[in-house]
Amino acid sequence: METSRHHGFGGWQIFGKHDSTEIGLPMKFSVYLPPAAVKGPVPWLIYLAGLTCTEETFMIKAGAQRAAAELGLALVTPDTSPRGTDFPGQADNWDFGVGAGFYVDATQEPWSKNWRMYSYVTKELPALIAANYPVDVQRLGLFGHSMGGHGALTLGLKNPDLFKSVSAFAPISNPINCPWGEKAFTGYLGSDRKAWAAHDASELMKQRAHPNAILVDQGEADQFLGTQLHPHALEAAAKISGQKLTLRRHEGYDHGYYFISTFVEDHLRHHAKILG
Amino acid sequence: METSRHHGFGGWQIFGKHDSTEIGLPMKFSVYLPPAAVKGPVPWLIYLAGLTCTEETFMIKAGAQRAAAELGLALVTPDTSPRGTDFPGQADNWDFGVGAGFYVDATQEPWSKNWRMYSYVTKELPALIAANYPVDVQRLGLFGHSMGGHGALTLGLKNPDLFKSVSAFAPISNPINCPWGEKAFTGYLGSDRKAWAAHDASELMKQRAHPNAILVDQGEADQFLGTQLHPHALEAAAKISGQKLTLRRHEGYDHGYYFISTFVEDHLRHHAKILG
Repeated sequence: METSRHHGFGGWQIFGKHDSTEIGLPMKFSVYLPPAAVKGPVPWLIYLAGLTCTEETFMIKAGAQRAAAELGLALVTPDTSPRGTDFPGQADNWDFGVGAGFYVDATQEPWSKNWRMYSYVTKELPALIAANYPVDVQRLGLFGHSMGGHGALTLGLKNPDLFKSVSAFAPISNPINCPWGEKAFTGYLGSDRKAWAAHDASELMKQRAHPNAILVDQGEADQFLGTQLHPHALEAAAKISGQKLTLRRHEGYDHGYYFISTFVEDHLRHHAKILG
Repeated sequence: METSRHHGFGGWQIFGKHDSTEIGLPMKFSVYLPPAAVKGPVPWLIYLAGLTCTEETFMIKAGAQRAAAELGLALVTPDTSPRGTDFPGQADNWDFGVGAGFYVDATQEPWSKNWRMYSYVTKELPALIAANYPVDVQRLGLFGHSMGGHGALTLGLKNPDLFKSVSAFAPISNPINCPWGEKAFTGYLGSDRKAWAAHDASELMKQRAHPNAILVDQGEADQFLGTQLHPHALEAAAKISGQKLTLRRHEGYDHGYYFISTFVEDHLRHHAKILG
């Protein structure tokens, strides 16, 4: 199941692949185990990446392993969609289909058979990792970037017993009101917008608050801030439900991994503090 | 000349392109400017990457910007070869031609016209950067990985007044006695092995010592250690010339960027201490 393993910061950067029951196809994943994992189960975080990314992107670009090693946190990243189907046009769009699973269970053909990223991330992936690596299932956090920030917020709000801590970088905070979200939700969930609200972080947060504070970082020079991300909707929702939300806006930072790498240590410390 | 610019760790990650006189073609480069650069010229390092890499690789994968920001060091990386020629078979090999310049001035046709990476890195690139960014030309260091470690050692030993500090990750320490070096030097410098010694770190270090200590890190699980890298030859040469050399061997680490990212902060601190 492991395809490669690299020593890093005294721990291990692992890449693997398994036959996923939820997805019905082989899925790749990556795991960083901190040095503390040799002594017993450690707290851990699942990171959900953004459009076009894979299970490798965060591990290569975010520079998170140093702080993870120091804090004794394991890190896990899944891929961003199923791969290996042959649906017509599945890879014609960078913001829909392959590399763009949006962390929902699709209800529309042909996507509904394999595009089950919600169930994969909330059920099969945590079980797979817990069965194979020394992680503490009671101390799991969830974070992500952009489309994966949307995933972290929505999956975290809906599963607070599973995901004890939540954070996001530049999340798509209100997908039902932006072009990326409208395109993806129409394709995966159908044209009836009533079905969309259950997968929208701002709509969910109006109704419920996660028991622990949520950290969100947003770059002010983010090229998608004005059209796609809508952090103000999340702030407004947090006021309604009383969600503790720290939303930091950073002058000069854009949407990319130089932004993420700058603040990833803060996120790891946020989760480590909650997970104990 | 700048193609993109990203805020990171309070400084700027810059990618650029220029028409190179030495190479006779456009060349790409990258620069990380630490926050301290807004106040005036800072010490800086040129990083030479390994086979198949580009000017992006180190900036994306090494996670060096955090320590560079803290230490007030600028980082510069050139590409690993000219690109844009149309020599027959130029890109057929991953260890020769495109992506594999070996930091020499080729003397053999057809490479001799453009493959002038020694002159590019020792003359044109430092002048270009110094003319456009706030770096202190008296405080320049050189480091690199694998093929780029060979480049850092050989260019550093031959130009100690230009490159005040030198370090390397898993360098090709004795290219005249390994398959990568024999292939590259035959192609770029011709089959007369007498011409090769001037570009071999171990041969050079027998004859001369850099005035400042050199740091080398080597992973013991490096897949190329036994066949290509020969750090023992460098250690033997250092004893002959009296070169101060700290060669650290790290159990479990391989040849990749998870190894580099683990130890890159040590390298930056090594350079910062010498450059002041």
